[in-house]
Amino acid sequence: MKKLLFVVFLFTLISFNQVYAQTNNKSMDNKIEDILKQLTLKEKLDLCHAQSKFSSKGVARLGIPEIWMSDGPHGVRAEIAWDSWEHAGWTNDSCTAFPALTCLAATFNTDLSYKYGKAIGEEARYRKKDILLGPGVNIYRTPLNGRNFEYMGEDPYLASKMVVPYIHGVQENGVAACVKHYALNNQEHWRDHINVEISDRALYEIYLPAFKAAVQEGKVWSIMGAYNQFRGQYCCHNELLVNKILKGDWAFDGVLVTDWGATHDTKQAALYGLDIEMGTGTDGLTSSQKNAYDNYFMANPLLKMVKAGEIDESVIDEKVRRVLRLMFRTTMNKSRPFGSMNSEEHFNVAREIAQEGIVLLKNKNNFFPIDPKKTQTIAVIGENATKIMTLGGGSSELKTIHEISPLEGIQKRFKNAKVLHAMGYASGPSVYGRVIDSKLNTDSLKTEAIKIAKKADIVLFVGGLNKNHHQDCEGDDRKHFSLPFGQDNLLNEILKVNSNTAVILVSGNAVEMPWLSKVDAVLQTWYLGSEAGNAIADIISGDINPSGKLPFSFPVKLEDNAAHSFGKIAYPGDGTNQEYKEDILVGYRWHDTKNIKPLYAFGYGLSYTSFTVLEAQTDQSTYQKNELITVSCEIKNTGDKKGAEVIQLYVSDLEASVLRPLKELKSFKKIVLNPGESKTITLEISTNDLAYFDDSMMDWKLEKGRFKLLIGTSSQDIEKTITIEVN
Amino acid sequence: MKKLLFVVFLFTLISFNQVYAQTNNKSMDNKIEDILKQLTLKEKLDLCHAQSKFSSKGVARLGIPEIWMSDGPHGVRAEIAWDSWEHAGWTNDSCTAFPALTCLAATFNTDLSYKYGKAIGEEARYRKKDILLGPGVNIYRTPLNGRNFEYMGEDPYLASKMVVPYIHGVQENGVAACVKHYALNNQEHWRDHINVEISDRALYEIYLPAFKAAVQEGKVWSIMGAYNQFRGQYCCHNELLVNKILKGDWAFDGVLVTDWGATHDTKQAALYGLDIEMGTGTDGLTSSQKNAYDNYFMANPLLKMVKAGEIDESVIDEKVRRVLRLMFRTTMNKSRPFGSMNSEEHFNVAREIAQEGIVLLKNKNNFFPIDPKKTQTIAVIGENATKIMTLGGGSSELKTIHEISPLEGIQKRFKNAKVLHAMGYASGPSVYGRVIDSKLNTDSLKTEAIKIAKKADIVLFVGGLNKNHHQDCEGDDRKHFSLPFGQDNLLNEILKVNSNTAVILVSGNAVEMPWLSKVDAVLQTWYLGSEAGNAIADIISGDINPSGKLPFSFPVKLEDNAAHSFGKIAYPGDGTNQEYKEDILVGYRWHDTKNIKPLYAFGYGLSYTSFTVLEAQTDQSTYQKNELITVSCEIKNTGDKKGAEVIQLYVSDLEASVLRPLKELKSFKKIVLNPGESKTITLEISTNDLAYFDDSMMDWKLEKGRFKLLIGTSSQDIEKTITIEVN
Repeated sequence: MKKLLFVVFLFTLISFNQVYAQTNNKSMDNKIEDILKQLTLKEKLDLCHAQSKFSSKGVARLGIPEIWMSDGPHGVRAEIAWDSWEHAGWTNDSCTAFPALTCLAATFNTDLSYKYGKAIGEEARYRKKDILLGPGVNIYRTPLNGRNFEYMGEDPYLASKMVVPYIHGVQENGVAACVKHYALNNQEHWRDHINVEISDRALYEIYLPAFKAAVQEGKVWSIMGAYNQFRGQYCCHNELLVNKILKGDWAFDGVLVTDWGATHDTKQAALYGLDIEMGTGTDGLTSSQKNAYDNYFMANPLLKMVKAGEIDESVIDEKVRRVLRLMFRTTMNKSRPFGSMNSEEHFNVAREIAQEGIVLLKNKNNFFPIDPKKTQTIAVIGENATKIMTLGGGSSELKTIHEISPLEGIQKRFKNAKVLHAMGYASGPSVYGRVIDSKLNTDSLKTEAIKIAKKADIVLFVGGLNKNHHQDCEGDDRKHFSLPFGQDNLLNEILKVNSNTAVILVSGNAVEMPWLSKVDAVLQTWYLGSEAGNAIADIISGDINPSGKLPFSFPVKLEDNAAHSFGKIAYPGDGTNQEYKEDILVGYRWHDTKNIKPLYAFGYGLSYTSFTVLEAQTDQSTYQKNELITVSCEIKNTGDKKGAEVIQLYVSDLEASVLRPLKELKSFKKIVLNPGESKTITLEISTNDLAYFDDSMMDWKLEKGRFKLLIGTSSQDIEKTITIEVN
Repeated sequence: MKKLLFVVFLFTLISFNQVYAQTNNKSMDNKIEDILKQLTLKEKLDLCHAQSKFSSKGVARLGIPEIWMSDGPHGVRAEIAWDSWEHAGWTNDSCTAFPALTCLAATFNTDLSYKYGKAIGEEARYRKKDILLGPGVNIYRTPLNGRNFEYMGEDPYLASKMVVPYIHGVQENGVAACVKHYALNNQEHWRDHINVEISDRALYEIYLPAFKAAVQEGKVWSIMGAYNQFRGQYCCHNELLVNKILKGDWAFDGVLVTDWGATHDTKQAALYGLDIEMGTGTDGLTSSQKNAYDNYFMANPLLKMVKAGEIDESVIDEKVRRVLRLMFRTTMNKSRPFGSMNSEEHFNVAREIAQEGIVLLKNKNNFFPIDPKKTQTIAVIGENATKIMTLGGGSSELKTIHEISPLEGIQKRFKNAKVLHAMGYASGPSVYGRVIDSKLNTDSLKTEAIKIAKKADIVLFVGGLNKNHHQDCEGDDRKHFSLPFGQDNLLNEILKVNSNTAVILVSGNAVEMPWLSKVDAVLQTWYLGSEAGNAIADIISGDINPSGKLPFSFPVKLEDNAAHSFGKIAYPGDGTNQEYKEDILVGYRWHDTKNIKPLYAFGYGLSYTSFTVLEAQTDQSTYQKNELITVSCEIKNTGDKKGAEVIQLYVSDLEASVLRPLKELKSFKKIVLNPGESKTITLEISTNDLAYFDDSMMDWKLEKGRFKLLIGTSSQDIEKTITIEVN
């Protein structure tokens, strides 16, 4: 592979830095101004809205190419028809399905994030897509959010660190990443209209950092506006979010694209920073009408307002400059490579991320790994052992070359074992038309499952959620925190006949685990894409030592989650408004500060080996503002297997004048160690990272005093602490 | 425009020579060999057949892009669905419709051919098409051929000279031209199976030269095989045509693509030079079945033969090398520009070609030009005054931004005149669904036409053929030589009430003109595309002085045409075979040699001014083999208007040992002269051009002796002759 890449593409591939240097220079600005002068007002507006479901116009007469966009964050979506949501029926659009972003976040491995971005960017490029509509960095606020599986967890620092290399990887291909959904689209229920009220502090400390990192460190070329409202204004044309923060404070020079159909007002769209309106038809016209796109808010209605003098043409010019800049970075970047799809390398990346993202939550008596050489009977029970998880879920749905199911993966790896399978439960007809035989009723499925559980030496229960409506799926939220389709009950029945049982959860969200004490092992496996079953088999066979860490807390019960602690006004709202009453105390910040023990904590995940932090020290004991704090820690693999551990550095403000979370993640590093090996790593943070957002000043404030640095292997497994002083 | 091109594209545009140099070098060959080594047999075969109606696979895993093709020669066809002949329903695919290639040929202006190619290539590139399926250079053998309008006339020299710059223009865009239909697809009737029998001499002298020029001078990157058979073998896998001549003698290094569905045998396709099979589904599967393309002759059936050892894999490798070479020249050529569509420049090119291609056949008493300043009543009669001519016709159909009808063009230009219009006749429902009101019957249409003819000072009858089945349309031939839909009768009726009548013919073929002596003027306008009406108004108003010349002879009656002089075996054949019994005597070669006076001769066309060849001389009187003959002629504009004349140089072998045509075109030059101005031009031919193809030697033979050079303004208007001697 390496050789071929050299031969075919060495002369074409260029590094991200080169692309960025090329596209960020003065001459590009000059070119943009020269083009701008040639455009009619109509041509300018044509650049600011869709011409089809997933494309917007260029300027054909001047040879300025169109922009083609594609969902989504986990793989390049199948080709969609010109003017409807139907699949176009192409046969060249099967892709590599990468693990969902929750899994990527769980790797705590920024190198993998870059590999993910690079690979998916190559697939987008090969499919001639200029904007990839992802990644998503909305914060995990409630385990009911139907779209959590697409995001990167509950911690703003983790999401920030993971999003940046993904963007770099995508954009090296001359394909724009489009970080979404800006902002506060933290639930799917009522997303089309719900108005979010939140403190400035929570906004800046929790919900914006990943977007800021995407802009300032990731240099992302586009951002997608959210559906919901914030302080009474829709997010796609929100004066504070877009004009003040994104384009003002952060100096974002890219394009703000709407979510599909998320524009609501022409004047606001014009004045509050929207650049490209995408959607599904508007003004009462169906999208199949040829001129529907002319009736978009940013099309004829805006044309009329400019002609009437209500909006100055300079407002449009500013949008056009951004669109042209994006074009010079993508469609008009002649250096961009050609991309590729479904390469061995891409599937390997997908598998590697899956392997590193799977989280071992419980492993009593070393249930895992299961020796593949052993002759035994393994009962694999559960619909998720065979259910296709790349279908459904909304815009992140994929048509993939292959999706290895957990059952297939296990069957392939455990050739010496007799692998039995029963569905056990059924989720009902899928929204994507894969209908479950209606003659199969719950009882018969359960009976069959119990039967094979009895026969088996080991039971692997493969359950969880799926991609159907009201599960892990765009458009609405989960209705319950518990496992659906009678799985708890089924599991209890299984445990009565075979206690040698492990649970393999396929989900993008935390679930209630009333049976936890009775099962030997629990594996959280997310949605893993093409290589799902292979990666699961890699872990449970011991071929790969698990190293994933939870990117969000698993509460014992729903009420233990912050957003669910303040009644309906906090979640899901009253139908019009909702208030983020938990404020900055999201996820482990809530559990820690309120001393509500989670079922599994943020940053938690087991290994087949064990690690100890032998020593930890800072380079100084007192620091000034703007100064770097260097922490060195020595880590040892104290077990008998090679493995990887994520060393996490949290910070606690010991003398805060305001409420601060008990601790906050400020750095992490993943390290691979052989049995008995120890290594010293350094973690660096700036004293500025110790600041909080002061609402009264509307700025970050670093308070003098003592801070505690907490070094551990999860937010609850702190092994060393160091106290420093900031002057 | 120039400024913008400079600003936007200077850094991207490169000349044809550069592209050619880049893509024809050693390093490309090395890259191809390196890629070849990485491909599986299946991947190789995937490169050799369609994956959809108009695309073929790349190698996704290696980042080798797909190939996308598009009809056709006169504009870039609307997007076609993935797997059916339906339009895809896109709204970004309206193009500039350029004049049909008969019109381009009638310009006798190679500069315009280059402009045509460059502009259409830019449109193809903007639409992300990698192969443009044109131009067509089949020889005009019979006026009944439904597809003549797509070709460049009856003379191999004219077609050769015109095809080369078109190819250069297209390919400068990194888009391959695909010269079609190789070979002998000179009629549409029975094209799917008819077997053509023809002498080697006629093949080499008449039917192959334009293809040879396309390959050797045009350096064309792809050729499309014809539907029909030649000497019992289908043309897409014809050992003689493809292996021996195209790839052997001519050293064609490009790709032979089939016409759609023109493959008939796997082994022949493999062995006799087919490179990419395109089509409509095969093996009894409908094309909507996902795996239909796997059943193509060059897909699984060929895979099986290679695996069984019946075909050596090296045979496939040779095809793959060619496909990869085409990719390096197109999809993998990073220097190619972005293209453009519907620019003012493109419409100007279309109009210029239309202006120069229109042929003034008769102009008694200076009927034309008509003074636009004059207040008078003009009756525009005829369906073709308003009929959309870019729809229909087969694969050359276009969806254009605009098509100015003759009526519109006249109305716009003759603002002082009262322009009346009547349809006069109706061609019936179009194949493309534009249904004529069934209540309109022929009589009422005629009555209305006579009524306005009576009222008018001038009658412009705009008739001819159209793009319906059995007219100028792919798939079958015309059934009659006469004008259809009762036009002759209508015209006679009109002439009874108003003799001040001119006929404007919209057609791609010669028609019978029984009314000719009674009309004052006849204008042959072809299918002119987007700017049709404007160009016609340009000519009839005198804004532009006509300079078009007939690229084929108009016989008085069908039987005067060579192909129709030998009974059905010569045309259309007996259903299985046909014999080109007229041999080399095609078009004016027949009329001249057999002394059958045509209605209008090849190369003929009037001007609003007059020209004389004052003098003509050669640089020597005796020549050797391989020597250049330089002819200088002084031409004078003897009239009172600026105008252009095409000086044509024909050659006659005075002492031939075999039958030779009375004369053959060997050179031409178009020259613009002001009133009273004279200029001396030089025409160069090689003595080798005086050779004939000797069947017995299977080579060109130059005979010693005297040759007459004939210099004139049409094949029948010879003004000067010079006799030379070849030793």
